[in-house]
Amino acid sequence: MKKIVLTGAAGNLGKILRGPLAAMCDELLSTDISESVGDLAANETFVQADLAKMDDIRPLLEGADMVVHFGALVDEVPFEDIWGPNFVGSYNIWQSAKEHGVHRVVYASSIHAMGMYPKTVAITPDMPHRPDTYYGLAKCFTEDLGRMFWEKEGLESVHIRILSATSRPGNARALGSWLSPDDLVQVVTRAIDTPVVGFTVIYGVSNNDRSPVDNSSASHLGYRPKDNAEDYAVEILADTPPADLNDLGLTCHGGPFASATLGVSPMALMGIPDDD
Amino acid sequence: MKKIVLTGAAGNLGKILRGPLAAMCDELLSTDISESVGDLAANETFVQADLAKMDDIRPLLEGADMVVHFGALVDEVPFEDIWGPNFVGSYNIWQSAKEHGVHRVVYASSIHAMGMYPKTVAITPDMPHRPDTYYGLAKCFTEDLGRMFWEKEGLESVHIRILSATSRPGNARALGSWLSPDDLVQVVTRAIDTPVVGFTVIYGVSNNDRSPVDNSSASHLGYRPKDNAEDYAVEILADTPPADLNDLGLTCHGGPFASATLGVSPMALMGIPDDD
Amino acid sequence: MKKIVLTGAAGNLGKILRGPLAAMCDELLSTDISESVGDLAANETFVQADLAKMDDIRPLLEGADMVVHFGALVDEVPFEDIWGPNFVGSYNIWQSAKEHGVHRVVYASSIHAMGMYPKTVAITPDMPHRPDTYYGLAKCFTEDLGRMFWEKEGLESVHIRILSATSRPGNARALGSWLSPDDLVQVVTRAIDTPVVGFTVIYGVSNNDRSPVDNSSASHLGYRPKDNAEDYAVEILADTPPADLNDLGLTCHGGPFASATLGVSPMALMGIPDDD
Amino acid sequence: MKKIVLTGAAGNLGKILRGPLAAMCDELLSTDISESVGDLAANETFVQADLAKMDDIRPLLEGADMVVHFGALVDEVPFEDIWGPNFVGSYNIWQSAKEHGVHRVVYASSIHAMGMYPKTVAITPDMPHRPDTYYGLAKCFTEDLGRMFWEKEGLESVHIRILSATSRPGNARALGSWLSPDDLVQVVTRAIDTPVVGFTVIYGVSNNDRSPVDNSSASHLGYRPKDNAEDYAVEILADTPPADLNDLGLTCHGGPFASATLGVSPMALMGIPDDD
Amino acid sequence: MKKIVLTGAAGNLGKILRGPLAAMCDELLSTDISESVGDLAANETFVQADLAKMDDIRPLLEGADMVVHFGALVDEVPFEDIWGPNFVGSYNIWQSAKEHGVHRVVYASSIHAMGMYPKTVAITPDMPHRPDTYYGLAKCFTEDLGRMFWEKEGLESVHIRILSATSRPGNARALGSWLSPDDLVQVVTRAIDTPVVGFTVIYGVSNNDRSPVDNSSASHLGYRPKDNAEDYAVEILADTPPADLNDLGLTCHGGPFASATLGVSPMALMGIPDDD
Amino acid sequence: MKKIVLTGAAGNLGKILRGPLAAMCDELLSTDISESVGDLAANETFVQADLAKMDDIRPLLEGADMVVHFGALVDEVPFEDIWGPNFVGSYNIWQSAKEHGVHRVVYASSIHAMGMYPKTVAITPDMPHRPDTYYGLAKCFTEDLGRMFWEKEGLESVHIRILSATSRPGNARALGSWLSPDDLVQVVTRAIDTPVVGFTVIYGVSNNDRSPVDNSSASHLGYRPKDNAEDYAVEILADTPPADLNDLGLTCHGGPFASATLGVSPMALMGIPDDD
Repeated sequence: MKKIVLTGAAGNLGKILRGPLAAMCDELLSTDISESVGDLAANETFVQADLAKMDDIRPLLEGADMVVHFGALVDEVPFEDIWGPNFVGSYNIWQSAKEHGVHRVVYASSIHAMGMYPKTVAITPDMPHRPDTYYGLAKCFTEDLGRMFWEKEGLESVHIRILSATSRPGNARALGSWLSPDDLVQVVTRAIDTPVVGFTVIYGVSNNDRSPVDNSSASHLGYRPKDNAEDYAVEILADTPPADLNDLGLTCHGGPFASATLGVSPMALMGIPDDD
Repeated sequence: MKKIVLTGAAGNLGKILRGPLAAMCDELLSTDISESVGDLAANETFVQADLAKMDDIRPLLEGADMVVHFGALVDEVPFEDIWGPNFVGSYNIWQSAKEHGVHRVVYASSIHAMGMYPKTVAITPDMPHRPDTYYGLAKCFTEDLGRMFWEKEGLESVHIRILSATSRPGNARALGSWLSPDDLVQVVTRAIDTPVVGFTVIYGVSNNDRSPVDNSSASHLGYRPKDNAEDYAVEILADTPPADLNDLGLTCHGGPFASATLGVSPMALMGIPDDD
Repeated sequence: MKKIVLTGAAGNLGKILRGPLAAMCDELLSTDISESVGDLAANETFVQADLAKMDDIRPLLEGADMVVHFGALVDEVPFEDIWGPNFVGSYNIWQSAKEHGVHRVVYASSIHAMGMYPKTVAITPDMPHRPDTYYGLAKCFTEDLGRMFWEKEGLESVHIRILSATSRPGNARALGSWLSPDDLVQVVTRAIDTPVVGFTVIYGVSNNDRSPVDNSSASHLGYRPKDNAEDYAVEILADTPPADLNDLGLTCHGGPFASATLGVSPMALMGIPDDD
Repeated sequence: MKKIVLTGAAGNLGKILRGPLAAMCDELLSTDISESVGDLAANETFVQADLAKMDDIRPLLEGADMVVHFGALVDEVPFEDIWGPNFVGSYNIWQSAKEHGVHRVVYASSIHAMGMYPKTVAITPDMPHRPDTYYGLAKCFTEDLGRMFWEKEGLESVHIRILSATSRPGNARALGSWLSPDDLVQVVTRAIDTPVVGFTVIYGVSNNDRSPVDNSSASHLGYRPKDNAEDYAVEILADTPPADLNDLGLTCHGGPFASATLGVSPMALMGIPDDD
Repeated sequence: MKKIVLTGAAGNLGKILRGPLAAMCDELLSTDISESVGDLAANETFVQADLAKMDDIRPLLEGADMVVHFGALVDEVPFEDIWGPNFVGSYNIWQSAKEHGVHRVVYASSIHAMGMYPKTVAITPDMPHRPDTYYGLAKCFTEDLGRMFWEKEGLESVHIRILSATSRPGNARALGSWLSPDDLVQVVTRAIDTPVVGFTVIYGVSNNDRSPVDNSSASHLGYRPKDNAEDYAVEILADTPPADLNDLGLTCHGGPFASATLGVSPMALMGIPDDD
Repeated sequence: MKKIVLTGAAGNLGKILRGPLAAMCDELLSTDISESVGDLAANETFVQADLAKMDDIRPLLEGADMVVHFGALVDEVPFEDIWGPNFVGSYNIWQSAKEHGVHRVVYASSIHAMGMYPKTVAITPDMPHRPDTYYGLAKCFTEDLGRMFWEKEGLESVHIRILSATSRPGNARALGSWLSPDDLVQVVTRAIDTPVVGFTVIYGVSNNDRSPVDNSSASHLGYRPKDNAEDYAVEILADTPPADLNDLGLTCHGGPFASATLGVSPMALMGIPDDD
């Protein structure tokens, strides 16, 4: 493969992906709204760009085979603030991709597109959207956009609904929702190397005993995670108080986003870093 | 009911709805981006407003029980042009409704949220979205938004996926997709008078022999259309050439929108008025 | 047909059924825990009996072709009080029927076997039980019992999940749930005259515009209701206040039973007669 | 439409269809293995042909727009005898149709492709095949063949699974399964005049109260039957003995075919004419 | 966790569970209708009690966090005999649990709630009940009761449909249905330590190659069995005669219960100990 | 087991199966249209026979317990040529099996019965047929035939839809579709040693990461493949050009058969040996 474009390259997940992606192509173009991503791989270049600006984005995709679109505002914020990077940003990526004949977009979708389902329902890739926040709504929008570009323009896309991508599981929810760094790399790699994907939705979660999703309809992608949050279960459960069953943040797939006020960051309120 | 707000009051469908809505409430507030809607009912007031502007919209909903949201740009246009009225406009309506304690939004969704399904598939309200245009994508966005406001804020909504709302069926597609004026009034009326709707999606189509949808999952709304496009079948079929089976505009639910180029009006190209 | 046994013959529904049943057989044996059912048809006999007592029930079924089992305590009461008539009573009927070679039991099941489903979900005969009361739980028990006797003993049964069987619809819920007397007679008649029924579950509801159920999987029974509660809609809706969406009694299929305390009659509390 | 070819023109159903089909096209070519079909319409020609012989069939389809393929051996017979007309015959029709650029085949499929389903299961067009005889197996074969020609060659087809096509319902089974002559004409007409059908399967049954099938997934075809076997119910049921529940001929959709020995005509044994 | 109550503590499965449960809480209260359970753990107390007597049961649950309800009559017996311990017993447990504010009941349900499904159908937790015996009917009753207490009272429950819980697989059926002691402990442990379970149904079966169930909808519970009956396959299959395909005891999930006469113990007849 | 008959014994798969089958029975009768299968096992006999000739086939099945039916013309050829061995051949096997009281047929069905499904759809055993060739159509025919003999005659069968049975995966498609020799032996062995199979359909594919099918509904068969084509992925993907998304041979389950012209061998055109 000649060229891959990675958006959100300075983010937590972008940092993990840069090396593996550089190894898969002749040229990796990394971009972010940040000024820098630090040291570059030999075949990597970096361009600062604002996803919300078509003029920033369009030139980057020239000659690209695929785009790995992980750039976004990663939190719940007021609708007015998320519109640019997460909605218009997606449009800019797909429209530019179409104009340049890019073959495929691999997108960091999120569990928050489905966050209002009760945890006791095992969710599949083809159930209807139930977003929990504007952040999740932007994921729904982008998945529908991606499906339309596939059906109308033949532009493939893989939408990885990431659950909790962190270095290690940090709470009881993550015993089910953890996505380890290695498994993140695997699912992105398979989303790239599978010859035919059409429009595919898949959950990005590790091989946790308590994984609350069912990816069997996306088995053609060959994603077989290896890590298991259960290794941390004894320790985590010892610190977990009984659940308040009236708290949607504990009973729904979306976790704290499910109970959050629309437009207000649940993570900021809790003083913890975002996890997906 | 004290107050209903009708957006898009100057549109083709808004004109049909103003009288029946005025009869259902103490006060009908009609609004449109146009300057006027002509003669007003005794209990009707008109305010010109731009859906894309929160400052225009917010004050209108004060004291309202329900909003009948039919205002939108009704055609396929470039994404940049449809964003304001059809995406931000929906956000402005729901956000204002929440702020003012409005109970319910009745929304003019569209078959174009599902337009890429083949016509030989009978579509139901709970199948995944397959939009055919940016116009349809805005409907998907609004449905997901409405579901989220129901699940997070308790704000009810009914999403009527209108097929072909015209005075009479005009072509072979409309033998299945026609929504007569009387049936339009009925479905909107039931969406208002049903005591509990939660989040409901329903197709707005008449009792056509060839109706290509299955509304059985929304039977609680009590919509039972009376008109039947089959009355026009002999005449219309006599003028219908054999279908080109490679034309998505003939084989998909979305009709001309399904085969249209994204961002380009299929109706303008064909010199015919829009029908849904 | 030689002999039909009708239980609950003195109840509101039993009274409606006695005449039509007498016309379908040589001998109608009516029974109830009450002392009398009033004037008898020419081919009708009455025997007072307690469903909870096998010795009362067993002799009645001798020589019967079918049992129309409508006898039960028709209200929510403490579990200890409902066990005898509604649980043991069902066992006594099926066990006696098997012993006497009766071909079929037609049973008055109830919406309350499914009462906790939200009203916005159209329920079908084969979805899992979600009882709303001990009363509803007895219906679930009897349906499972009936299925077992069919699969193990070849004893057929039809389980009619009655919604609101009253002379006319009395409130907004009944606009969807009303079962008219004529339609009650029809569904029972079809449950009897259909040559093969195996184990069949069907909703007993009129042809209401707002009927919230889907009987299509039981079409072999040929039940086509004629009456429509919509005839009363204007009058009823005029007296219906906006729904409190936190009231399960308004948002669930079971109506007042869904919000009732287990073991406590919701109807007694409201001072209204029971309707199903 | 210029030319329609009707096979099986001398059969019971062919006789009913000849007139209506002649009225829909410039030229009707009727064919049968019989020597004659009697008087011809003005625009009708007749050619005797053996479906099992490609050389007989191929020339007939030249210039045809559609084929209405009702020719077949209509009974259960040994496999060796049914192979020619019902299997090879179908192949000859579809292969010739493809060679001549025919647009569509309308096929007389049968309930016997699904005959082993219990009558208490409402069957839909997309459930898996469960044939009851070699006769039914030939229908399964032809449906799969038709789907393949649609997906590989773009040759459309409608497969009408006829239940009991007789002048009036003759027994208790027919209270559900009757297809009246008028409704037969309607379903065939709609299969022809619907502009896009792709690969469509639909049950051919009248608007009987006890209709045991669910055609809702084929609503795009616009088939709305008018006749109802229930008009004959009182008379028929009076003559119907209680069902033997061990008799598959009474408990399965296929009727006498379901209990028949493979390769042996159930109708000959019973001395009654075939009904579907 | 402060206190767990274990019913059926003297039974085969209770014996296996006592140690692991004692290790999960400050206080384990074991109870059984037997006089004793032998030596007690340091934090364990034993109280003899009859499940059918509310006065016996109610006091035991005071202060409990969870109840592990494994007590029941474990065999098919006449309905009159099973009513007390298995029906009323379940009611007594749930009603007492509600009165004392217990958070959750973990219940030993059984494959016999689903025993009449053919073995060639992979059963899931949400298919309708098909009980094979009164024993199985009591499991259906309790599951429906548990769902109602969850939906009405917020009392959580996990219903483990145990297949064949024995020390090692004893016959060909058990190659699919075996639940090893270690896996029994795992599934009960997960049913306790999972923070949110709502109303969950899951099959209790080991990781057998031939496991005939599909637990994917209950993956949130994190049950991942380790043992595999296939280790015993060569030996067992060598002693297995060809199956009599007319024997429901061989062709249905319920095994000998499926072919048993209602109310008569199939195990007593066969001289073998019960296995589930 | 006394006697197994293996058809297609000289074919690529037959060669692999002869040894393991000989070890499972007293007498293995191997047959093929070829003159010889080479050296025979001690308990093996060989008889040359033409599947299309009943007189050849019938005597072979005398006294057999099971037939492993792998004989067929393994390629796409004109319908006239495939009819004898693949259609009539199946009939001859099942009809002879019935006549001789054989218990079960294990059949080499194929992915080509489902070949027109898009690769991005995970196919299950009970989805409707979508054959890609006459070769695939013969598999559909045989599966329907097998179901009918099970439902009418009690003759069991297992239909193994083989994907790509080769010594090692040879191309990108095979990363999902490979069936290793060892896994082939396992699935056939389980199809034989499972005591009750009724009518079972299962996909024959190894434990590939990218396996595109879902066998969970056939778990009762206990097939747990061990090999994984992913071991060859790096090497194969390095040689795989980007997919032409308009090539049905790349986007559909059937591979080259999906894009082939009906009646013309895709493998001959490509100069590669057939793989399934």
